[in-house]
Amino acid sequence: MTVSIDAMGGDAGPGIVVAALARAVERHPGVRYLLHGDEAALKPLLERRAKLSTQVEIRHSAERVRMEDKPSIALRRGRNTSMWRAIEAVAKKEAEVVISAGNTGALMAMSMYQLGVAEGIERPAIAALWPTKRGQSVVLDVGANIGTSPEQLVDFAIMGAAFARAILGLERPTLGLLNVGSEDMKGNDAVRGAAHILRSVPLQMEFTGFVEGDDISEGTVDVVVTDGFTGNVALKTAEGTAKLVVEYLRAALRRSFLTRMGALLASGGLKALRRKLDPRAANGGIFLGLNGVVVKSHGGTDALGFASALDMAIDMASANVMTHIVADRARAIPALSPAAVS
Amino acid sequence: MTVSIDAMGGDAGPGIVVAALARAVERHPGVRYLLHGDEAALKPLLERRAKLSTQVEIRHSAERVRMEDKPSIALRRGRNTSMWRAIEAVAKKEAEVVISAGNTGALMAMSMYQLGVAEGIERPAIAALWPTKRGQSVVLDVGANIGTSPEQLVDFAIMGAAFARAILGLERPTLGLLNVGSEDMKGNDAVRGAAHILRSVPLQMEFTGFVEGDDISEGTVDVVVTDGFTGNVALKTAEGTAKLVVEYLRAALRRSFLTRMGALLASGGLKALRRKLDPRAANGGIFLGLNGVVVKSHGGTDALGFASALDMAIDMASANVMTHIVADRARAIPALSPAAVS
Repeated sequence: MTVSIDAMGGDAGPGIVVAALARAVERHPGVRYLLHGDEAALKPLLERRAKLSTQVEIRHSAERVRMEDKPSIALRRGRNTSMWRAIEAVAKKEAEVVISAGNTGALMAMSMYQLGVAEGIERPAIAALWPTKRGQSVVLDVGANIGTSPEQLVDFAIMGAAFARAILGLERPTLGLLNVGSEDMKGNDAVRGAAHILRSVPLQMEFTGFVEGDDISEGTVDVVVTDGFTGNVALKTAEGTAKLVVEYLRAALRRSFLTRMGALLASGGLKALRRKLDPRAANGGIFLGLNGVVVKSHGGTDALGFASALDMAIDMASANVMTHIVADRARAIPALSPAAVS
Repeated sequence: MTVSIDAMGGDAGPGIVVAALARAVERHPGVRYLLHGDEAALKPLLERRAKLSTQVEIRHSAERVRMEDKPSIALRRGRNTSMWRAIEAVAKKEAEVVISAGNTGALMAMSMYQLGVAEGIERPAIAALWPTKRGQSVVLDVGANIGTSPEQLVDFAIMGAAFARAILGLERPTLGLLNVGSEDMKGNDAVRGAAHILRSVPLQMEFTGFVEGDDISEGTVDVVVTDGFTGNVALKTAEGTAKLVVEYLRAALRRSFLTRMGALLASGGLKALRRKLDPRAANGGIFLGLNGVVVKSHGGTDALGFASALDMAIDMASANVMTHIVADRARAIPALSPAAVS
C-alpha cells in the first residue's frame, strides 16, 4: 500500500508530518509514502531520520495552498501545489489514499475535480468518528455541504453506514437523522423527506428515525446523519464544551490544599482522562463519496495528531470503504430512483 | 410583581413546582404567584407548606397540554388547559411573566396567539444562557424557528443584545453569527445576508462577524445568533458532551485504590465542579419577541431546576427586557427598512 501525503498543508509545517511518519513506519511496516512538498525543506528533515529513507519518497512541488485561499482559486491556479500533487498520485493510481492537514475547501474541490464523485453519489461528505458512551459513532456531514436535499441526506446515510460497517466492523449499523425532536412532524423539509425515503427503502442499515444533539455522545445510534452546516457547528460545539469542562475540572482541583493532594493521588486516572479527551486521538475527517480515499487532518494538529490521521487513512484504504459505498448505493438504486425501475 | 405558573407542564408533575415555590417565596418576598392547574392535586400540595398560602393563589383548570400534543391541536382545543390559562393571566395584565415546563411548541403557539408578537419583530426566538470560560453568553434561537431569513437573524441579534444588556448588564454587548468558518465567503445565504445587514446598520451592539461552534463556550462574544435548528442541535450536543466528559471523569477516578483516595480528598472540588455543570443551574429558555415575558423550564427538570427558571423569570420581568427590545428595534427600523426611510 502507498499513502500520498501533502507535507505542506498544516499550520505547523512539514516538521510534524515527518515526525508522524517516523511513528507510522514502525506501526505499518509494509506501507510506502509519497511526500509532496518543498524538497529543500523536506530533505534535511528526512535525513535526520535514517529509518524513513527506504519507505518515504520525496516528490517536489514548488507551491502550497494556504489556509486563507479560496477553494475556487486554489483549484484554478494550484496545479503546482503539494496538495494538488498529493491528490494526483491517487488519481494516477500511484497511491491508495491521500492525506492533508491543509485548507478543507481546497482539498475537497481538488479531490472532486481530480478523483471524481463516486457513481450515483450527488455530493461527497466529510465524516468524523465521535466518541460516545458506547464507544464511537460516525457523524456526517461535518462540513462539506451547506444546504442539503433529502436525497443527499440519504446518500450520506448510505455512505456513513458503509463506513461504519468497514471501520467499526458493524454488520448492520443503526442510523438516525439529526433533528430538533424525535417526533415525525419535527424538523425541516430535508430531514422529513430523508426520513420518508429511508423508511421506504431496504438498506444495509437499521434506520431508527430522528435523534437529537445529546443522542450523539449518548451513542444512541452508530451513524448520525446531518447537513454540513449543522454537523460542523455540532462538532465544534462539542470540542469547545469538552475543553470548557476540563478547564472547570482544573480550577476545581486547584481550590485547596486537599483538592491538590487529591489530584496528585488521582493523577493516574486524570492522565487517562486527558488521553481519552485528547482531540488528537480521533484526528481526521474522512471524505466519503469520491473515487478515492481522502483524509483531512486537523490544520492545527501536531505530530501525534497527524500520526492518528495517518492510522485512519491506512485503515480506510485497507477496508475498501469506497467499494462498499458504491455497492451499497447500487443495491439501493432500484428502490431510490424511479427511472432505474422503469 | 406577579408570576403566572403552569403547574401541570413538566414531566414530574406539580409536586416539583410547589417545592420550587417554597424556595422562591423566601428569595423573592415581594412576588405573588398564580398557580394554574388541577385544584384537587394542587391544594393538598400547598396545604403542606403553610408559608405559601399568602403568596400563592390556585387557579383551577381542568385540562393540561401533554408533551406529545401537536402545537396546532393544542392551540385549537387547549383553552381549558393550565398552559393556556397561565399565559392568559399575562395577556390580561394580571401577571408580568408566565413560566411553564411543558410542551415547547404549544407554549410558543399559545403565547404568540394570546400575547402577540412585538412590534416590528417577524418571529419570536428562544434564548438560552450558555456557560462560557468568561462567564455566560446568550445564544438564540435554540428551537423556535426552523429555517430563518437574514432579516429574522437580524431580529434575533437585536433581541439577544437587548437581553444581554438587561440580564448580563452589558452596555454594548459583542455579537457573532454562528457559522462554519470565520471568513466572509463561508456559510449559507441567511448568515451572509444577516452579516451584510448587521455591518451596515448602527445598533446597540458590536457585531464582530462570524463565530464557530467552539467560540460559544470560549465566550468569544456575548451574544451568539443562529437559526433554531442549528441552535437546538448545538445546545443539546453541548449538554450531551458535558455529560460524557463527567462520565469519563467518574470512570477515571474509579480506576484504582489511589485514584479513589484522590477523589475522596478532592471531593470538595469535585462537588463544586458538579454544581458548576449542573444543568439545573441555568435552566430555562426565554421566549423573546412577544408582548410579554414567557420562560420555558426544561420538561424533565426537578424542583431545583424549576426554582432556577423561576429566578430567571423574575429577573426578566424586573429588567423590562421586552421594552428594551421594542425600543432597540424601533431605533434600528429607519436603517433596516427602506420603506420607513422613504
